[in-house]
Amino acid sequence: MSSRPLPQHPALKAMQEIAEFVVRSVNLIDPAEVDRMADVLVDVYRRNGKVLVMGAGRSGLVGKAFAMRLLHLGFNSYVLGETIVPSIAKGDVAVAISGSGRTGLIVEAADAAKKVGAFVIAITTYPESLLGRIADLVVRVPGRSKISKMDDYFARQILGLHEPLAPLGTLFEDTAMLFLDGVVYYMMIRLNVTEEEMMNRHANVEL
Amino acid sequence: MSSRPLPQHPALKAMQEIAEFVVRSVNLIDPAEVDRMADVLVDVYRRNGKVLVMGAGRSGLVGKAFAMRLLHLGFNSYVLGETIVPSIAKGDVAVAISGSGRTGLIVEAADAAKKVGAFVIAITTYPESLLGRIADLVVRVPGRSKISKMDDYFARQILGLHEPLAPLGTLFEDTAMLFLDGVVYYMMIRLNVTEEEMMNRHANVEL
Amino acid sequence: MSSRPLPQHPALKAMQEIAEFVVRSVNLIDPAEVDRMADVLVDVYRRNGKVLVMGAGRSGLVGKAFAMRLLHLGFNSYVLGETIVPSIAKGDVAVAISGSGRTGLIVEAADAAKKVGAFVIAITTYPESLLGRIADLVVRVPGRSKISKMDDYFARQILGLHEPLAPLGTLFEDTAMLFLDGVVYYMMIRLNVTEEEMMNRHANVEL
Amino acid sequence: MSSRPLPQHPALKAMQEIAEFVVRSVNLIDPAEVDRMADVLVDVYRRNGKVLVMGAGRSGLVGKAFAMRLLHLGFNSYVLGETIVPSIAKGDVAVAISGSGRTGLIVEAADAAKKVGAFVIAITTYPESLLGRIADLVVRVPGRSKISKMDDYFARQILGLHEPLAPLGTLFEDTAMLFLDGVVYYMMIRLNVTEEEMMNRHANVEL
Repeated sequence: MSSRPLPQHPALKAMQEIAEFVVRSVNLIDPAEVDRMADVLVDVYRRNGKVLVMGAGRSGLVGKAFAMRLLHLGFNSYVLGETIVPSIAKGDVAVAISGSGRTGLIVEAADAAKKVGAFVIAITTYPESLLGRIADLVVRVPGRSKISKMDDYFARQILGLHEPLAPLGTLFEDTAMLFLDGVVYYMMIRLNVTEEEMMNRHANVEL
Repeated sequence: MSSRPLPQHPALKAMQEIAEFVVRSVNLIDPAEVDRMADVLVDVYRRNGKVLVMGAGRSGLVGKAFAMRLLHLGFNSYVLGETIVPSIAKGDVAVAISGSGRTGLIVEAADAAKKVGAFVIAITTYPESLLGRIADLVVRVPGRSKISKMDDYFARQILGLHEPLAPLGTLFEDTAMLFLDGVVYYMMIRLNVTEEEMMNRHANVEL
Repeated sequence: MSSRPLPQHPALKAMQEIAEFVVRSVNLIDPAEVDRMADVLVDVYRRNGKVLVMGAGRSGLVGKAFAMRLLHLGFNSYVLGETIVPSIAKGDVAVAISGSGRTGLIVEAADAAKKVGAFVIAITTYPESLLGRIADLVVRVPGRSKISKMDDYFARQILGLHEPLAPLGTLFEDTAMLFLDGVVYYMMIRLNVTEEEMMNRHANVEL
Repeated sequence: MSSRPLPQHPALKAMQEIAEFVVRSVNLIDPAEVDRMADVLVDVYRRNGKVLVMGAGRSGLVGKAFAMRLLHLGFNSYVLGETIVPSIAKGDVAVAISGSGRTGLIVEAADAAKKVGAFVIAITTYPESLLGRIADLVVRVPGRSKISKMDDYFARQILGLHEPLAPLGTLFEDTAMLFLDGVVYYMMIRLNVTEEEMMNRHANVEL
C-alpha cells in the first residue's frame, strides 16, 4: 500500500508490516457494526449496567486493555478470570474476543452470558464461527487465525502480507487492540468524557 | 494444647499443628479491634463506598479470597494489582495484609491510600511496623514472620509450636485466611445477608 | 472436640469453628492418599517435570498459594489461567482443586491434562464426582459443598458443625489450604530442602 | 503522511490514525538499539537464563503479551506480579516497559533487578527518565506520555497527529505492542524457531 521503503532491520520491517496490516484492516471493518457496538455500549453506560470482557491468551490481554479504558470512561467494566467478577444479567453486556471464534472457553462463557440474558458482542475474524453465531452482534476484525491455512491465503493474496511475519494470532490481536482503542476514542465523544476525567478515574493506588 | 494424638503422617501432623496454631490464635486477637474493623466495613457498605484489598505474595492471595467474599456480600470490593482498580478517595477503605508489616510495596500502597483520604485497616502480626503505624486501625493477627528470630521464639515458647512445621509466612497467611472468613460470617449477620443472596452474587459466567 | 470455651465475638467464634473443623478434618484424610500424592510429586521433581495447578474462584487462590510454595521448593510449577503456562505432556503432573468435583472448567482442564498424558491429582470432597473419576489419584479433603444439602447434613451431624458459620465453599477452601501447607512441609523433608533455600528461591523483585 | 482518505466513522478514523502513528514510529526506532536488545535476548536464551518482564497498567499487559510469545519461542519468561515469579540473578534479563519512564513501581523493580545483577532493558519514550538511567540498555519507542505537554507538541507537530485521538498512554502502548511483536518475529529468525514449534509450546490445557 505504501511506497515507503521498508526498514532494513528485520524486527522493524516486521513491525512495519504488522502496522500496515492494521492500516489496511481499517477499511475492512464495517462502520455499521461499529456503530451498533457503540450504541449498545452507550446504552449500558446510561443505564449503569455492567460490561464483562472475555478473551483467552493474548486476546484476553487485549480485552483487559479495553476493560481498563472502559473503567476510565466511567463504565462498570469487569474482566472474566479476575478475582472480582460480579454476576451479570439481562441489561448487561459481554464483549467476547476471539480471532478464530472457536476458542472453547470463550465460546462457553459467551453462551453462559447469553443464557443469563446479557447482550453478547463478538470481536472475531469469523462471523460464521461458533462464537459469531452465539453473539447478538458481531464486529468482524481482520486477522490471520492461528489455525487456518485459508487464512494464510487471505492474508497473503488479499491483504498483501507476503511472509508470515507475525506468528499465530498476532495480526488479529494487534488489529483488535488498535480497533478497540478507536472505539475508546469514539466513546469519549459519544459520552462527552474528557481525557482529564479519564485520568481522574485512573487508579491512584498502584501495585 | 489438645490431648488428641498427632497423626503419624508428617504431612497431616504439620496440617494439624498449623490448624491448632490457628485455634490458639483466636484468643490472641483483640475483639475490640475486630469490632472496629466490622464497624468500618458496615459503614462503607451502607454508604456504597469502595473497599480496596492489598497484599503481596501469599498474603495477596488471602486478600483476594476475602475480596471475593466481600463481593458476594454486596460490597464494591477491588484487589490491588488486578486489571480493574478504580481510583479511591475519602470515604473508601483499604485493607492491607502483611504479616511483617514491612512489605515495601504494601507499605507504599497503604501510604498512598491514606494520602488520598481512605481509611486504612492493617492486618499484621506487628502493630509497631511501618504498615501498623500508617494504618488508621490495626488488627493484630498472630503469625511467625519469615524474617524474625523473635517470632520463632514466640511461636515455639508461647504458642507451643516446637518445630518449624510451616515455612516462611505460612502461619500468618493461614491464620489471616481463617480470621477474615470469620469476619465474612460476622458481616452476614451485621448486614443481614443470607447464603442464598451470596450465591446469587457469585459469578455466573466463569473462565 | 475441644472443651475450650468459644470466644464471645461472633467473628472470632466463626474463625474458631472453622479452625476446629480443619483440626477434625485431619483425621478424615487418608494417609495412603497423601503418601501417593507425595510420591508423585517427589518423582516429578527428580525428573525435572512440570506441575500445573488448577482451580476456580477461591479454590484457584488456594492452588496459587500451593504453586508458589512448590516454586520455593524448587519445582517447575505453573498456575492455569496465568500468563505463563507451558504446554504439558506425559511425565508432568496436574493438581486440580474443586470441593464439589464438578466445577465445569476444572473438570474440562483436568480432562485435557489427562488426554495429553499428564498424571492428574484431584483435591476434592467428592471422590465419586466427575473430577474424581477423571483423576489418576484422588485425595479426599473434607468440606461442605456450596451446593449439596447432604453436605450440610454431613457437616452438622458427622463433623459437629451446628451452624453454617462458613458460607459457600469456605470450609473446603480453608481445609485444602492448610492440608496443602502440610504437604509443603512434608516435601521439605522428602526433598531435604531447608527454609533458607526456600527463601532464596523467593522472588527478589516484586511488584 | 498517507494520501489514503480517512474513513468517515470516528472510531475507525481514530484506529487509522493510531495505526499510522505506529507506521511512522518504525523509522524513529534506532536499529542499533533493537540489535543490541536482540543480542541480549539470544544470549540469555542460549544460556537458558530467565527473562522477567515488568510493566504497570496497560504497559504491563503489553509486557504479558510479549512474555507469552517469549515462552512460545522457548524462553524461560516470567511476568512480575504473577503467582510464579522466580528469583533472578546475574545472567538473567529484565525487560521494563514504561512510556514515561517514571512509573514508580517499575522504576523500583528495575532497580531491584539491576541490584541483583540482572541486565535491564528499558522500553520507554524517555531515555533520560529515571528508568532510562537505571537501564543497561534503552530502546526508545515513540509515544505520547500521559503526563507531558511537550509530548503533545511532539505528537502534533513532528508526527502529525493533530487531534488527541488516543487518550493517556495509548500511543506508546500500541506502538510498544507492535514493536515487541516485531522483535518476536526477529527472534524466530535468530533462534531458528518455526511457527509450528511455537504452536507446540502453546498451552495445551487452558482455563
